[in-house]
Amino acid sequence: MSVLKVGVAQHACSGDLAANFEASLAAIRKAAAQGAKLVVLQELHRGLYFCQRESVTEFDNAETIPGPSTDALGALARELGVVIVASLFEKRAAGLYHNTAVVLETDGTIAGVYRKMHIPDDPGFYEKFYFAPGDLGFTPIDTSVGRLGVLVCWDQWFPEAARLMAMAGAELLIYPTAIGWDPADDTSEQTRQRDAWVTVQRAHAVANGVPVISVNRVGHESDPEGGAGIQFWGNSFVAGPQGELLLELDLEASTDVVDIDMQRSEHVRRIWPFLRDRRIDAYADITKLYRD
Amino acid sequence: MSVLKVGVAQHACSGDLAANFEASLAAIRKAAAQGAKLVVLQELHRGLYFCQRESVTEFDNAETIPGPSTDALGALARELGVVIVASLFEKRAAGLYHNTAVVLETDGTIAGVYRKMHIPDDPGFYEKFYFAPGDLGFTPIDTSVGRLGVLVCWDQWFPEAARLMAMAGAELLIYPTAIGWDPADDTSEQTRQRDAWVTVQRAHAVANGVPVISVNRVGHESDPEGGAGIQFWGNSFVAGPQGELLLELDLEASTDVVDIDMQRSEHVRRIWPFLRDRRIDAYADITKLYRD
Repeated sequence: MSVLKVGVAQHACSGDLAANFEASLAAIRKAAAQGAKLVVLQELHRGLYFCQRESVTEFDNAETIPGPSTDALGALARELGVVIVASLFEKRAAGLYHNTAVVLETDGTIAGVYRKMHIPDDPGFYEKFYFAPGDLGFTPIDTSVGRLGVLVCWDQWFPEAARLMAMAGAELLIYPTAIGWDPADDTSEQTRQRDAWVTVQRAHAVANGVPVISVNRVGHESDPEGGAGIQFWGNSFVAGPQGELLLELDLEASTDVVDIDMQRSEHVRRIWPFLRDRRIDAYADITKLYRD
Repeated sequence: MSVLKVGVAQHACSGDLAANFEASLAAIRKAAAQGAKLVVLQELHRGLYFCQRESVTEFDNAETIPGPSTDALGALARELGVVIVASLFEKRAAGLYHNTAVVLETDGTIAGVYRKMHIPDDPGFYEKFYFAPGDLGFTPIDTSVGRLGVLVCWDQWFPEAARLMAMAGAELLIYPTAIGWDPADDTSEQTRQRDAWVTVQRAHAVANGVPVISVNRVGHESDPEGGAGIQFWGNSFVAGPQGELLLELDLEASTDVVDIDMQRSEHVRRIWPFLRDRRIDAYADITKLYRD
């Protein structure tokens, strides 16, 4: 059995960026101390989820890649001998910003980056204002712990993204994410939303025969515009290649480690050979917006 | 609230085709008596799941469409004023057979057919021997109860099929199916398989914002070759457009009716506008078998 120990770290953020980053670094140390060789952080873990409003001053917090965060994360990756998946507000050029996941290798180098391809825009989640849609496509990142299909948050709702990563040989699908409830919604709506979020990602594991790691933030963050804010629901989880839950956190801050048997995908794809039977002769319309 | 009452009927089959068909007709009557306006039957409900072995004599049981089954089902649809989704072993020509779903309109006519596009072939499920892959694509069928995205069994594992149906305006995804356990598998493997099957289909509802109806057979059917046979797991279910379970049967024969609020899809797609944000500029490789 070829086991990969994976650490997931979900925490609440405040307006103190340095303190948030310290929390991320401490979580990585904790996971590594428990044997993790891959540690995944939540989306935009350095700060509050600033997309609750549209404000140009937020661009002050964007940073280059490489930059201060990747320097610090790279040094820690090297020190601990772990691969780290982090999520940063990338400044690519003046007026050009991305929601970017970066993968640090065990030697401290940047193994690769993924720029969030699907960008949401909903009340409280005004990401289209901040982030240019990614232009790197759905390209996995090779690391010493495997080929990682790194995606970000809103991507998790799109089976196409998961499929394209798996078709490019991704051995794991990884989603740093920041999703929560509108506190004004009732409990049944909140439950449906969280269940849907878990279900659609577990289904990516099933449809593609690969494990899925999803890491979400926790805590309530106020709306600077005076709304109800967002209650981030945590519930970070790891699923195996049949969608089976290997680890599931609740809505409290937590760091945990779980074993993934990296040989199970081979077995599962033999008994469920979906890749063999895709009707690629009939899929062309997937590249349309609608079939009308 | 625009409610559609949907009936689902799962039952065990024997070698007596007439008796099986009577069971299907009785289930339709029962569902209609409970107010169903749409009734969905399990895959290949007229007989045993004959694909446990490859035998040319099984082709004797295939029939044309239109043919005796669609005549009888059409007459019942007209009598009861219901739309029926049935699943038949279609004889299209000598040596050309399909696994076909047929939709009967309330006036007794055939509203349309869907020929199973994804064909499995695994030990005990030798469908590639019997069924030519469908050549009608992923085309919904218009009926008096809505535009139906009818798919069949193995299709349920492919997000592309669900997506293409939804993109063509399908208001419901419908899966007649015949799936079961290898009795030799242990309980944990059986549980993972059934959960994966439910999860991947609920995820089609989530990703596309449409309800899903899945109807599976029940009962143990022996392997004519002397193997352990198949224990069909039933568990027919109906999910709403957030993947929320509206109805879930167990592994016993059963007919039940459930209300689907057909206006919820509009609401759900407004709060989760996935169709708006698809990166069709980056999906072209979906039409490849693999990205290597």
